[in-house]
Amino acid sequence: MKEILINAFDMNCMGHLSPGLWAHPRDRSHTYKDLSYWLNLAKTLERGKFDALFIADVLGVYDVYGGDVNAALQQGVQVPVNDPLLAVPAMAAVTQHLSFGLTGTLSYEPPYTFARRISTLDHLTGGRLAWNIVTGYLNSAAKGSGLEGQGSHDDRYEVAEEYMEVVYKLWEGSWADDAVVVDKERRLFAHPEKVRKVEHHGRYYQVDAIHLAEPSPQRTPILYQAGASKRGVEFAAKHAECVFIFGPSKKVVGTTVKNIRQRAAANGRDPSKILIFMVLTAIPAPTDAEAHAKHQDYLKYISYDGALALFSGWTGIDFSTYNPNDPISYVQSDAIQSMVEGFTIADSSKVWTVQEVANFIGIGGIGPVLIGSPERIADELIGWVEDTGVDGFNLAYALSPESFEDFVDLVVPELQRRGVYKKEYRDGTLREKLYGKGVTRLNNDHPGTHFRYAPLAKVAP
Amino acid sequence: MKEILINAFDMNCMGHLSPGLWAHPRDRSHTYKDLSYWLNLAKTLERGKFDALFIADVLGVYDVYGGDVNAALQQGVQVPVNDPLLAVPAMAAVTQHLSFGLTGTLSYEPPYTFARRISTLDHLTGGRLAWNIVTGYLNSAAKGSGLEGQGSHDDRYEVAEEYMEVVYKLWEGSWADDAVVVDKERRLFAHPEKVRKVEHHGRYYQVDAIHLAEPSPQRTPILYQAGASKRGVEFAAKHAECVFIFGPSKKVVGTTVKNIRQRAAANGRDPSKILIFMVLTAIPAPTDAEAHAKHQDYLKYISYDGALALFSGWTGIDFSTYNPNDPISYVQSDAIQSMVEGFTIADSSKVWTVQEVANFIGIGGIGPVLIGSPERIADELIGWVEDTGVDGFNLAYALSPESFEDFVDLVVPELQRRGVYKKEYRDGTLREKLYGKGVTRLNNDHPGTHFRYAPLAKVAP
Repeated sequence: MKEILINAFDMNCMGHLSPGLWAHPRDRSHTYKDLSYWLNLAKTLERGKFDALFIADVLGVYDVYGGDVNAALQQGVQVPVNDPLLAVPAMAAVTQHLSFGLTGTLSYEPPYTFARRISTLDHLTGGRLAWNIVTGYLNSAAKGSGLEGQGSHDDRYEVAEEYMEVVYKLWEGSWADDAVVVDKERRLFAHPEKVRKVEHHGRYYQVDAIHLAEPSPQRTPILYQAGASKRGVEFAAKHAECVFIFGPSKKVVGTTVKNIRQRAAANGRDPSKILIFMVLTAIPAPTDAEAHAKHQDYLKYISYDGALALFSGWTGIDFSTYNPNDPISYVQSDAIQSMVEGFTIADSSKVWTVQEVANFIGIGGIGPVLIGSPERIADELIGWVEDTGVDGFNLAYALSPESFEDFVDLVVPELQRRGVYKKEYRDGTLREKLYGKGVTRLNNDHPGTHFRYAPLAKVAP
Repeated sequence: MKEILINAFDMNCMGHLSPGLWAHPRDRSHTYKDLSYWLNLAKTLERGKFDALFIADVLGVYDVYGGDVNAALQQGVQVPVNDPLLAVPAMAAVTQHLSFGLTGTLSYEPPYTFARRISTLDHLTGGRLAWNIVTGYLNSAAKGSGLEGQGSHDDRYEVAEEYMEVVYKLWEGSWADDAVVVDKERRLFAHPEKVRKVEHHGRYYQVDAIHLAEPSPQRTPILYQAGASKRGVEFAAKHAECVFIFGPSKKVVGTTVKNIRQRAAANGRDPSKILIFMVLTAIPAPTDAEAHAKHQDYLKYISYDGALALFSGWTGIDFSTYNPNDPISYVQSDAIQSMVEGFTIADSSKVWTVQEVANFIGIGGIGPVLIGSPERIADELIGWVEDTGVDGFNLAYALSPESFEDFVDLVVPELQRRGVYKKEYRDGTLREKLYGKGVTRLNNDHPGTHFRYAPLAKVAP
C-alpha cells in the first residue's frame, strides 16, 4: 500500500468543525488569535510528520439558522474568523517540512494582488504551499463585499475559470526561468527581455502588467479543490492536483473518488496523480475503552444550536423551524439532497432526526469519527484507503490541539510500524514531497502549463 | 528633549531606496524573499530598541524612465516586490516589542477583507501594528488591477475618505468592548446583541456585514500617512497619528512639519500628538574618516539608470530624454516642482544636474545622508529634531542589513548616553509605547472615534 497522506484541518477561528466543544476545559482553540496557538500546533504536526496544515476559511457568517447570526455568535461557530494566510509565515519559521494549504476565496480578491500574495508565501515557505480554490458559498460574504448577493453557482465557476487563467498567466507566464540572474559582478539583476506583461482582456478580469513577484519555488502552488457539485467536480478534474472531499460513508466517498478520477482522465490527466483527501476525525486513546470514554466526554459539549447553525449554512435550510425529533427526510430541498443522501446511505436502515444530525455534525462536521485504540484506528484508516481509493485524510479536531497531539503520539507510531506512513519527510517543495524529487512544477498534463513562459519565435525582419 | 523615535525603513524587495547598491558584495537585500532575511533584521532592530520596522510597498513598476520597465528590471529597482504583510507574523514570533508599519494601498483591496487582514495582524502581533495609508501613485499599478489608469489625484483622496469611514466602522463600531466573554462555564462565547452589522451604503463602497474579527488589541492600528500634496497633508492632518515625510533640507522639512501641525490643529486635533518621522540615511563608522571611506565605497555602486528610474516614477518625467549634465531647472513640470524646490532650497547657490540628482537619490532616495562618527551622527540627529520639530526618523539603508547593524551597534549607544533614546521598551501595544500606558485606542480628538460602538438608546415601546 502507498503511504497514507495526512493533513491537519483547522481554521483561523475556534471550534472549527466541532461546534460547542470550545467550552471543553482542555480545548485551546479559542486562543486562535494568538501566535502561540499556531506555533505550538505547527511544531506538533511536524513532530508527527504531517504533510500539511490545511486552513479553511469563510468570508461570511452562518446566518441561515433562525435568520440571524445569534446562534453562531453565542457559540463562536466559525465566527469570528481571522485571515487564513497570516499565521503561515510564523509557522514556516519554526518548521522545516510542514506544508500549508490555504483557502483563498477568489470571488473577493483581484487576481493580480492575490497572485503576488501567494508567490510571496511560496517564497517565504520555500515552496511549502498549497491553495484551496474556493468560490464561496455564504451569501453573507457577498454582502460584506458590497454585492447584493453571490452570483449563481454556475456563474461563480465561470468566473473561477477565468480567474485561474489569469493567475496561471501571472505565475507561469510572466517570468522566464532564467530571467533572474542576480549577477553582482555584471551588476545585472534580471534580463528585461525575459520578463513579459500579462495582457489579459477577458469577460471578468483585465490585467496589463508583469507579475510583481519573481518566480517562486513552485510558481503555481499545489492546487486543492473541494467542489462536490457536478460543476465543482468538473472544475476539480481540470485544475486540482489534490481534491478534498466530504462524506459520511465509504459508499459515498468511494463513489466520489471514482467519479473524480474518471472526470480527470476524461480531461486528459493521469487519474493516479490526483491525490484525494477526505475529512475525518480520530479520537484515539491507549485502549478502546478509554477512547470511548473520551468520546462520551466530548459529546457532552456539542452545541445543538451551533451544529445546526453550521448545517443550515451549508444547506441553506433554516433548521430552527424544525423540532429535534423531526426526521430529516421531511425536509424537501435540492440543496440538502446530496447531504441527506450521504447520511441515508451511511446507514440505509435509518431515518435521521434533526437531533441526530446535530450530534453527528457536532464532532468533525460531515465526516466519519474513528474511536479506539491506535491499532483500531490504524486498521480503520487503512480500511478507508483500501475500500474507497482515497490517498489520505484531512484530520478535523474534536478538541485542539488535543486531537492532533493524540494522533501524533498514539496513531502515527502505529501507522509507521505498519509501513503505511513516512518515517522521514522527503526534501524539497510540497510538490516534490507529494510527487517525487525534481517535480517542482505543474505536471505536463495540467492545463496551467499552457500558460508557461515560452521564448518568442524568431521572425525574419 | 523628548526621546527620538526610530523606525527602520525597508520594502519587500531589494535595494529599496539605494538603486544599484544591491550589487555591493556585503549587501544582502536580494535575499528579501527568504524568511531568514526578515527574521535576522527583526532581531537586529529589537536589539537596537527600534520602535518599528516600516515596510513600503508599490503595486506597480517604475516604467516611466525610457517608457518601459527595462532599467528597473536590470537593476532590480523596487521590482520584483513581494507582499508587505506576510513577513510580519514571522518577525513577530521572534520579537517581543518591535512594531511593524505596513503600507497598504487601499485603491486595490476591498475594505471588508482588508479590515480583517489588519485585525488578524493586530491580534497576532499583540497590537504592534501600524498601517501606512496609501492611495498609490504608479499608473502601472492601476493597469495591473484592470483599470485604464489610476483616478485623478483628488478623486483618489475622495475614495480614500470613504474607505477610512468603512474601516473605522468595521474596526471601531461592529463589536462592543464587552461583546466577547469566552465563558466556558455558561458555554457562551459572545453576546450577539453586542455585535452589529456595518451597514454602509456610500458612493464607492457598500458593506452589509459584521466585522469578521473580534476586537484586536488596538482595533484601529496606529495610522501613518505620507501625503505631501496639499490634499495629502489635509488627509494626514485629519486621519494620521504618525506622518512620514520626505525632504532634503531642514528648511523644507521644518516648513512641512509646521504646516502639518497647523492643519491638524485646524482639524481640532492636538498637534503635539501628531508624531512626524522623516526619511534619513545614516552611514556611521567609529571615526569620521572611516565613515567617509565607507560612503565613498558605497557611491561606486549607485546605478544612474536605477536612480533615474525611481525619480522618473516619482515625478512622472522621463529623465532618459535628458543628458546627465542637463540642469534640472530645464525640466518644466508641476509634478516635479516640489521636489526640485526641495533640492534648490537644500543648497540655494546650486543648480543641480540630472547626474547630481541621480547621485543624491542613489543613497536613501530624497532624504539627507548623515556620514560620520557616532558622536557626529548623534549631534546631527538631535539637530534635525531641534531645528525642524520632527519626532523621529525612518532610517533608510545604503546596504541591508549593514546600515541597520551599524546604527544599532554605533549610534544607538551614543543616543542612549545622551539621554535622547530609550534604554528599554515600554510594555504594551504600539499606541501605548508611543502615547503612554493604557492608551490602546484612538485619541478622543480623532475622527475614527465617531464610529465607535455605542449602546443603542433605550426607546419607550
